Amino acid sequence: MPRPLILNDDRLFPADAEARATARRLYGSVRDLPIISPHGHTDPGWFSGNAPFANAAELLLTSDHYLYRMLFSQGLALGDLGVPSRVGPSDADPRAAWRILASNMHLFRGTPSSIWLNQVFAEVFGFEVALDGSTADFYFDRIGELLGTPEFLPRALFERFNIEFLATTESPVDDLAHHKVIRQSGWKGRVVTAYRPDPVIDAEHEDFSVALAQFGDLTGQDVLTWSGYLEAHRIRRAYFATMGATSTDHGHPTAATADLSRPDAEALFAKIVSGKASPADAELFRAQMLTEMAAMSLEDGLVMQIHPGSLRNHNRRVFADFGRDKGADIPQPTDYVRSLRPLLDRLGSEAGLTIILFTLDETTYSRELAPLSGHYPALKLGPPWWFHDSPEGMRRFREQVTETAGFYNTVGFNADTRAFLSIPARHDLARRADCAFLARLVTEHRLTEDEAAELARDLAYTLPKHAYKLDHTPIDGRLVRVG
Amino acid sequence: MPRPLILNDDRLFPADAEARATARRLYGSVRDLPIISPHGHTDPGWFSGNAPFANAAELLLTSDHYLYRMLFSQGLALGDLGVPSRVGPSDADPRAAWRILASNMHLFRGTPSSIWLNQVFAEVFGFEVALDGSTADFYFDRIGELLGTPEFLPRALFERFNIEFLATTESPVDDLAHHKVIRQSGWKGRVVTAYRPDPVIDAEHEDFSVALAQFGDLTGQDVLTWSGYLEAHRIRRAYFATMGATSTDHGHPTAATADLSRPDAEALFAKIVSGKASPADAELFRAQMLTEMAAMSLEDGLVMQIHPGSLRNHNRRVFADFGRDKGADIPQPTDYVRSLRPLLDRLGSEAGLTIILFTLDETTYSRELAPLSGHYPALKLGPPWWFHDSPEGMRRFREQVTETAGFYNTVGFNADTRAFLSIPARHDLARRADCAFLARLVTEHRLTEDEAAELARDLAYTLPKHAYKLDHTPIDGRLVRVG
Amino acid sequence: MPRPLILNDDRLFPADAEARATARRLYGSVRDLPIISPHGHTDPGWFSGNAPFANAAELLLTSDHYLYRMLFSQGLALGDLGVPSRVGPSDADPRAAWRILASNMHLFRGTPSSIWLNQVFAEVFGFEVALDGSTADFYFDRIGELLGTPEFLPRALFERFNIEFLATTESPVDDLAHHKVIRQSGWKGRVVTAYRPDPVIDAEHEDFSVALAQFGDLTGQDVLTWSGYLEAHRIRRAYFATMGATSTDHGHPTAATADLSRPDAEALFAKIVSGKASPADAELFRAQMLTEMAAMSLEDGLVMQIHPGSLRNHNRRVFADFGRDKGADIPQPTDYVRSLRPLLDRLGSEAGLTIILFTLDETTYSRELAPLSGHYPALKLGPPWWFHDSPEGMRRFREQVTETAGFYNTVGFNADTRAFLSIPARHDLARRADCAFLARLVTEHRLTEDEAAELARDLAYTLPKHAYKLDHTPIDGRLVRVG
Repeated sequence: MPRPLILNDDRLFPADAEARATARRLYGSVRDLPIISPHGHTDPGWFSGNAPFANAAELLLTSDHYLYRMLFSQGLALGDLGVPSRVGPSDADPRAAWRILASNMHLFRGTPSSIWLNQVFAEVFGFEVALDGSTADFYFDRIGELLGTPEFLPRALFERFNIEFLATTESPVDDLAHHKVIRQSGWKGRVVTAYRPDPVIDAEHEDFSVALAQFGDLTGQDVLTWSGYLEAHRIRRAYFATMGATSTDHGHPTAATADLSRPDAEALFAKIVSGKASPADAELFRAQMLTEMAAMSLEDGLVMQIHPGSLRNHNRRVFADFGRDKGADIPQPTDYVRSLRPLLDRLGSEAGLTIILFTLDETTYSRELAPLSGHYPALKLGPPWWFHDSPEGMRRFREQVTETAGFYNTVGFNADTRAFLSIPARHDLARRADCAFLARLVTEHRLTEDEAAELARDLAYTLPKHAYKLDHTPIDGRLVRVG
Repeated sequence: MPRPLILNDDRLFPADAEARATARRLYGSVRDLPIISPHGHTDPGWFSGNAPFANAAELLLTSDHYLYRMLFSQGLALGDLGVPSRVGPSDADPRAAWRILASNMHLFRGTPSSIWLNQVFAEVFGFEVALDGSTADFYFDRIGELLGTPEFLPRALFERFNIEFLATTESPVDDLAHHKVIRQSGWKGRVVTAYRPDPVIDAEHEDFSVALAQFGDLTGQDVLTWSGYLEAHRIRRAYFATMGATSTDHGHPTAATADLSRPDAEALFAKIVSGKASPADAELFRAQMLTEMAAMSLEDGLVMQIHPGSLRNHNRRVFADFGRDKGADIPQPTDYVRSLRPLLDRLGSEAGLTIILFTLDETTYSRELAPLSGHYPALKLGPPWWFHDSPEGMRRFREQVTETAGFYNTVGFNADTRAFLSIPARHDLARRADCAFLARLVTEHRLTEDEAAELARDLAYTLPKHAYKLDHTPIDGRLVRVG
Repeated sequence: MPRPLILNDDRLFPADAEARATARRLYGSVRDLPIISPHGHTDPGWFSGNAPFANAAELLLTSDHYLYRMLFSQGLALGDLGVPSRVGPSDADPRAAWRILASNMHLFRGTPSSIWLNQVFAEVFGFEVALDGSTADFYFDRIGELLGTPEFLPRALFERFNIEFLATTESPVDDLAHHKVIRQSGWKGRVVTAYRPDPVIDAEHEDFSVALAQFGDLTGQDVLTWSGYLEAHRIRRAYFATMGATSTDHGHPTAATADLSRPDAEALFAKIVSGKASPADAELFRAQMLTEMAAMSLEDGLVMQIHPGSLRNHNRRVFADFGRDKGADIPQPTDYVRSLRPLLDRLGSEAGLTIILFTLDETTYSRELAPLSGHYPALKLGPPWWFHDSPEGMRRFREQVTETAGFYNTVGFNADTRAFLSIPARHDLARRADCAFLARLVTEHRLTEDEAAELARDLAYTLPKHAYKLDHTPIDGRLVRVG
């Protein structure tokens, strides 16, 4: 007999009755606020084309590395889960892949994936029984059926999810064709891009020289010269801004920054484009570019996001067979105190600049990130990221950050996902986790409930809008505060 | 007037009434499960000879470095506590040593040692008053009296403790004489060995060359050649397996691994056996041997345990006077992400291999160990170890590991102790701590109670049996799954 | 309408009713104990001169870098907050600065600053409405009025605060004139100094050579020779001891120690006084001096405090404009295991020596500091420091330290503040936080309530008196236990 699927209204709230009641009240005041999703990796093609999603496996499993990495860790083959390899698409039957997930749902107990999935199953698809081996086919069929209806087209879901703002992430050499279509379509959904220049900054990426050539073509600049290269960034940043972008995004292995003299920067750049750069050169170039990007952000107003600390593609066998982004990126210790100093020496005290820092190394919350963001006007802290986008991860973030940085040096929540359907579930989880934390502070008389209610709203809605300058309007590629 | 000694039935459960009731129910379903103790340091001689234990001090204090290090930290002399020195046995009167412990029990408030001791006092010996200066002699006399009775002989205690499986740890050059006696005795207690090759792998150990010579004698191999040395390992591993071993154990200062070419490995080994190895050579050799041991584990099915990160014998004065293992080993930061990569590149994706990782550096739980074990099929996480085998340590482990690795990439509890009498207390503490954690997840609606009950049983019993292949049978030194 | 300012009697206690009731009982037994404040940075001139404090802004804002760094992080200018620059005092109107603080009190939600401030407002000044923009002037005027009354003179406040012992911190070249005046005044308040030799030890400090010259003048020693320099320390330490000092204090960037041979130490010292020392020389000299100071502590009985791990003056722009100690010191990862070994090899097993360790790197609590202090007789752990002097910081400290080090290798609380008025609030917060932790252990049956009550008193009063040897009396500059 299938087990019932029930989402308790009090999920994630503290056990204590008084704290729980407070959490419930706080959450009640923010649960229906529109979703601000200023950082993520959804596909703009969904919203330009508005074609139906294919099936349960492709929509929910094959594209979600949180799920298939866990199944892989227990000895299941990526190919059987429908994950495409370097050779091409998997020939696994989507229904068979789905059954594997269904039969192994116990592996996700206690993980945020099970919270997100169950919320999607219950709230988006209306299931009342849990997914397991016995209900796998029922789920697969019912989801397939629903995906064919108008109510489950991407734009319809976007509206149903009450998303006010959704940013995707594109390379400087992306032509933003989907974003153009979205803007010209007359559809009122606000889906915009963000400028992610890693492909033309990371000289260790295998496609760097190809991307660099495209960068020159797109901008008409001689990007093999330092000045032409920087100008090309300015041009693309301004174009992204006209397409609605309010931010840039930088996914570096470390948080290293540099502030070289002009001649040193030119000499370094010459090495980079020569194709003979050493790993140390490549690292120094990424470091220098963070400072250059920050300087441009001070000019054009784009908010800068720095996501350091992931050692990408740790599993060489998986990388050889399946390529990048297959759940094999592993965090490593990350220094911010010395790494960021060159950038901060030059720009950290600029109140007109916003740099949002993320981390995969939670030891830096209380030791480095809270003291830095609690001092430098240019720094803010992004929400708990990736592996830490979870109830315990969010609790640790607030507990370790708040006493030094306060709430107002943080920026609310980022869904940061490719899994479109999970966006409301992720925001709901974040709102619940924040309200649970606030409720504890109220119960311990560290905040009044009035203060907590104001904070709940700020964390869910006001802070992300403000931090990502969604209350600003672009003028000539510069963001200017509205009202 | 002596204070009463009372073990509350709800100890270690959460304060909240609902969560506590849930914890109580979950614990009730696992409290009487047999004990699986797949990693530890008890003396097999206890079970072969089955002679009575000597007295309270020798049984409970002198052999427990958790206790005497704390007394030492407060200025008490190791010699007065009965700790043997390099010169020979202490001439301290056991009763006098016991009185010192008794008068200083306040030092252990809030530590797991006090939880374990009090449970041993109450449940094994039946005391109803607490140990302090006023009851020291009463305790000493009563324990002495009981130890002389048949019910307190090692095998009787083993049976009373409901131990289904107990592993000890032996060197490759140990003749396993006690284990032979146990197997030949007809006693049904399952006490087996584990293969701990550190003495013939760690070239920095003062007895390395002696151990190496014995290793050659025992196996008839020329262990001064690389191939003979490796073959000797294969021979002893197979022999240990026939004596019931299902695992190996590796206590290295770091988690460094290497995967050298055959010629490089041979050249390194030549340096090692020449007696002229530098510290860097010794470290590289340990690193290479972890990979070699993993490769052999893939062949013969022995589960591999890696315990890195302790700087041994930190206190040179204590080491000079008293020798090794005197409570002066201090943890240090431990890297897994880069260190394990050579081994993982070669063997990490093998679903037939089980490597269980332990750590003394809790910062790696969420940053490194959970992401690694949540991806690589060969990796599982051992329980919180040594200093972290405690209520708070276990809570941090579950909170920091579960959301990324789930429960099923962990392997249940290890007592890891020399203190035989504390084994039931340690398992009880672990079961209580896990049930407390599960109860919180149920109360916060992150698990259903059905799921939690299944997990409670899996963590206490099913996972350790499966992870350590106790449901496998050895065929020609290879472990094959039963049923 | 202004919001009420209410300090709930149960603030900081756990939510659960039973745990809360226990916390309340424990706290009730310690709330009125006298304050022992053995480490801090109050100005002895307040107590020698006993002149009235100037105004609310100068007393509470301009001197409190916790407050103005947070305002600075949100884009407010230090000059506008009354912070003096290198050029001279700020010309900001104190009332205007106060209004900025008042209008931005929301930034401190969830921080200990808001807890301390509100307790000062309510208990010291008797306010019943909260500080915000609407009450800024009311506060400013009322505080100004009260500061002019005899009840708000420094000595009167000291007595009202029930301070039994207060240590300030002075350089070896300070003439201790204020302390002399205090002792000669007949006032019964016990305000003593502590020996902080950093100015004559840190060769990288810009005023090092000036301080060294004064050091020679004051002691009549040739401080350009190694033996004269050490003798000068002995002389000043003894003098500080006769002025009531029971401790020394060492604020180094790292915890590095060294134990050089006499010729090596002399050669190093020669480089240091030559003015040509490299950064590595300066670091090695600081390292060597920690061991020298520890050796002198073994002779004269002064308790040694080591505060490592802050990267000072991280913001070069703020340092250039405003100088040191402006809220721009950022913690960095700190090693203790290898760093302290040279000192510990020589002196760590001396039960007659007390070294109190502090940290800004919480990852060392469970990994390094608890195991070290749970072994070495000479080591004790100071309370959570600086950014971690907070409810969550204190909780993490107890949770991560206690199970390995116990309570009796810790030393109670230090206010460590320049903000005199906050001392009672800080001690109150620490007592509440400790009672909350103890209450949890009682509720989870890990302590009896009797044990917890004894611990509550020991943590609040007995341990600091004993650890800082306030129950000792100086004889010839040596501290000898009383009674």
